[in-house]
Amino acid sequence: MAPLVALLTDFGLDDPYVGQMKAALLGKAPGTELVDISHGVRPQDVLQASFFLSASFPHLPGNSLCLCVVDPGVGTKRKIVLLQQGQQRVLAPDNGLLTLVLERGQAFRAWDMTASQPPGPVSATFHGRDLFAPLAADLILGKDPDTIGMAIAVSSLHRLRLPRVTLQRDTLTAVVLHVDRFGNCVLNVPDGWAARLRTYAWLRLEKPVDRSVALATTYGRLAQGQLGLLPGSQGYYELALNGSSAAADLGLAPGAGCVFECRSDFPRDSHP
Amino acid sequence: MAPLVALLTDFGLDDPYVGQMKAALLGKAPGTELVDISHGVRPQDVLQASFFLSASFPHLPGNSLCLCVVDPGVGTKRKIVLLQQGQQRVLAPDNGLLTLVLERGQAFRAWDMTASQPPGPVSATFHGRDLFAPLAADLILGKDPDTIGMAIAVSSLHRLRLPRVTLQRDTLTAVVLHVDRFGNCVLNVPDGWAARLRTYAWLRLEKPVDRSVALATTYGRLAQGQLGLLPGSQGYYELALNGSSAAADLGLAPGAGCVFECRSDFPRDSHP
Amino acid sequence: MAPLVALLTDFGLDDPYVGQMKAALLGKAPGTELVDISHGVRPQDVLQASFFLSASFPHLPGNSLCLCVVDPGVGTKRKIVLLQQGQQRVLAPDNGLLTLVLERGQAFRAWDMTASQPPGPVSATFHGRDLFAPLAADLILGKDPDTIGMAIAVSSLHRLRLPRVTLQRDTLTAVVLHVDRFGNCVLNVPDGWAARLRTYAWLRLEKPVDRSVALATTYGRLAQGQLGLLPGSQGYYELALNGSSAAADLGLAPGAGCVFECRSDFPRDSHP
Repeated sequence: MAPLVALLTDFGLDDPYVGQMKAALLGKAPGTELVDISHGVRPQDVLQASFFLSASFPHLPGNSLCLCVVDPGVGTKRKIVLLQQGQQRVLAPDNGLLTLVLERGQAFRAWDMTASQPPGPVSATFHGRDLFAPLAADLILGKDPDTIGMAIAVSSLHRLRLPRVTLQRDTLTAVVLHVDRFGNCVLNVPDGWAARLRTYAWLRLEKPVDRSVALATTYGRLAQGQLGLLPGSQGYYELALNGSSAAADLGLAPGAGCVFECRSDFPRDSHP
Repeated sequence: MAPLVALLTDFGLDDPYVGQMKAALLGKAPGTELVDISHGVRPQDVLQASFFLSASFPHLPGNSLCLCVVDPGVGTKRKIVLLQQGQQRVLAPDNGLLTLVLERGQAFRAWDMTASQPPGPVSATFHGRDLFAPLAADLILGKDPDTIGMAIAVSSLHRLRLPRVTLQRDTLTAVVLHVDRFGNCVLNVPDGWAARLRTYAWLRLEKPVDRSVALATTYGRLAQGQLGLLPGSQGYYELALNGSSAAADLGLAPGAGCVFECRSDFPRDSHP
Repeated sequence: MAPLVALLTDFGLDDPYVGQMKAALLGKAPGTELVDISHGVRPQDVLQASFFLSASFPHLPGNSLCLCVVDPGVGTKRKIVLLQQGQQRVLAPDNGLLTLVLERGQAFRAWDMTASQPPGPVSATFHGRDLFAPLAADLILGKDPDTIGMAIAVSSLHRLRLPRVTLQRDTLTAVVLHVDRFGNCVLNVPDGWAARLRTYAWLRLEKPVDRSVALATTYGRLAQGQLGLLPGSQGYYELALNGSSAAADLGLAPGAGCVFECRSDFPRDSHP
């Protein structure tokens, strides 16, 4: 079965860039099934792209190809790389975009695809359309990465320095990875930390503001106006308010640090 | 022929949610044709979603499936329901989203699909991807709703209390259902009221502002700057200005009330 | 092979208009491959639509059909026209939207399609869904334009009066055609002017502000904060800042005029 191609860029949807990239791909590989993960990555925000990619990767069909173009280094010597895990593949600039996928998985293989021959003229500013899309089409059509690229060590791939998350002596220190449309704040606290957090009954957000926080499992179990920390759908815990925007209420934006005091006793003023 | 799946959510297009939901669906039912009705419903605005759905329903192919996820009650006991009219179907949370489709049609059947078995782990916050998408795939692949759900009475479906529209003694009282990108204000005056309105020559908008309004048929027949009330394309009358935004000019937003005095005589200051 | 249909409108993605237009098309011509060029054209901005179309036209597969609906004259006597070059076609209102495609190419044929019979009721305000989409479906299904339309002279098509660009006595006078998501300002200086500009070493932007500008080839070769004029990916030169928004920095918006003094000598304060 033909692979599904999932697209992730910072091109936005107002400019004709996404359409031109898709047309270049479909011109070479007609009939390819395309799904947009997002084109709303903040311009040149490689960390946000890395989060969107790693959060979406487990939900893609097993033989999909992710085409990711958040590429501040377009026109410089940065590589174009292919990452493979089983039958699932990612084509991306080697600028750290793969960091979180690499963190969360294993058994990867990698190729440097920079030297592959594009089919037409290449603009200096839009490799998504002129290099990435034809390369993706070649891969969809079954070309062997070893014939159009060169195997490289996975350890050689560029990695971002990630914001730190720690839980030490009942103090949880985390960073906002993403604020979604509903105002939920995705923190860099992996949902794998559930066992560690379960020993607490509630949290107190100390920074940037002083607020009681319920450890919850769904938005609906929070009282209206009650702040909750709950395992979200993207692989991380999120800070949420039932029925309104936690980000607006707390003044949080991506990159903001949050410090929680974790408590086992049950306070009067919380409603978990 | 395989059904077209039409998608309607409040997820926005910046987050990876729509892409993950589509990937979940296409992973189970590859090759399905998808059309986005809108993902720009205001967060958790079930009435706006109900309007978008009922306005789009008559324009979808006869065997389409609408997958609607505007779902403030995710994680609570709200049902997931399937509504069917002929070969056309809607899968949605039972929170009132179906209200306007039910108002405007008949000969429906309904099923409660809440108990169907999802194929994988279900997050507490994203049933669109983890429950609705696999259910939609099952239906596309031809599974019988009676085997994966349970027939229920259409009358048991949750309905929103709709804003009222009245025409009494030459006074038309209506509510803005939607303001579109062009600033046209869709009122809850059904286009079926054309015969009743045709007895008038013009209107005076009395609330929220005092303005003369032409009863018109197209934007182009309005003079520049002339306010018109005309049957729009979405099943309702809309208040429009030729060449600019009626909403900005009048300060109107969804939910705003409008009161018109309807007149048969022809005033000096109008230009119908 | 079935043609790809590329869509270009000013409908935005929040309203259900694009979805309804696609559903109307797919209802008549199921399985058609659709690509969105953009639905973010500023409302009723025919010049921006003309730029998006001509910039995208060369990147579409050879047998594609562009369906363009930026249509301030909906409901008036403006024509619906089909333009053909080789096997590539554009269906659009005859309001100047085709201007830049016509400027940049040749060997066109044209038809007036206004009199074709729509399959259902036609709203007065949404011809994209009720007239253009069914017409596009007819063409995709192989209907001969001569049987559903009438051949007309290409010279009879409506053309916009374009903003002027001149290079006279070392003074380059241009206009901003478009500002993209990254803040790059696309000027109406065709990339075909490279030979004329190559005789200069640098430029001084004199209006709207006084700034030194490097003649560059890629964003990456500009120093951080250095303003550059470089051949972009859309067929025109663009004014760009490496790593930030030239439009924000210079206060430029579409329609703004720019005057450059072109210099062959090399100044101290530039870093090309």
